[in-house]
Amino acid sequence: MQSDEQQIRDLVRTWMDATKAGEIDKVLELMTDDAVFLVPGRPPMRKSDFEQQAKAQAGQKGQPAAVIDGRSEIQEVTVSGDWAFLWSRLSVTMTPPGAATVERAGHTLTVFKKDGGRWRLARDANLLAVVQK
Amino acid sequence: MQSDEQQIRDLVRTWMDATKAGEIDKVLELMTDDAVFLVPGRPPMRKSDFEQQAKAQAGQKGQPAAVIDGRSEIQEVTVSGDWAFLWSRLSVTMTPPGAATVERAGHTLTVFKKDGGRWRLARDANLLAVVQK
Repeated sequence: MQSDEQQIRDLVRTWMDATKAGEIDKVLELMTDDAVFLVPGRPPMRKSDFEQQAKAQAGQKGQPAAVIDGRSEIQEVTVSGDWAFLWSRLSVTMTPPGAATVERAGHTLTVFKKDGGRWRLARDANLLAVVQK
Repeated sequence: MQSDEQQIRDLVRTWMDATKAGEIDKVLELMTDDAVFLVPGRPPMRKSDFEQQAKAQAGQKGQPAAVIDGRSEIQEVTVSGDWAFLWSRLSVTMTPPGAATVERAGHTLTVFKKDGGRWRLARDANLLAVVQK
């Protein structure tokens, strides 16, 4: 039996791998139905907004896919009962079809919930900013 | 005896009031010694960095003070044991001496820790962006 912390670390790794592979349904299974995503200068995103954006980037509806890659360095995981939080340093590169690669880097603060014995992402603050070359 | 949620809501109100009044020592007492502040495009700030920045804004060392005001609309508070998280919509105006007022607005995701029976801010992700006029 893995520790809660290890399960959460595995979730982050699965999330990054599934994102890179364009496996959107797999990513959606890793979050709660009431997940909230906070980013600078925009309204909160819900799960349905996340799905819509991810599908656009993954090239559904006959559009070519963006190439996404990322690296997460977890700084801290703290578990308290059925809730946990984690902060990490994250770097993500995205290359839309026919366009230059954009790199974003910064930190995330994420809340996870244990839901039916399984950890899922519940709240996420994404502080990534574009890296100027 | 107030509920944990009410104590956390009161902490946020005290934080805003003390910030407006330039009472930095009071704000510092509201956070854990290992507090971490995450903002877009900058390295994590620790308590000592926070203190240094707050003192500069409050006009220590013979400098005039910036006028700071803010409004927090709490969206959610969840408590789990000695840890809690909260997200809110926050608007802050800052008027440096002799300069125009800058308004920042957006969301925060904050983690609190119950420490010796008292809630304190432990981790904070601040996603505020400048409001273009």
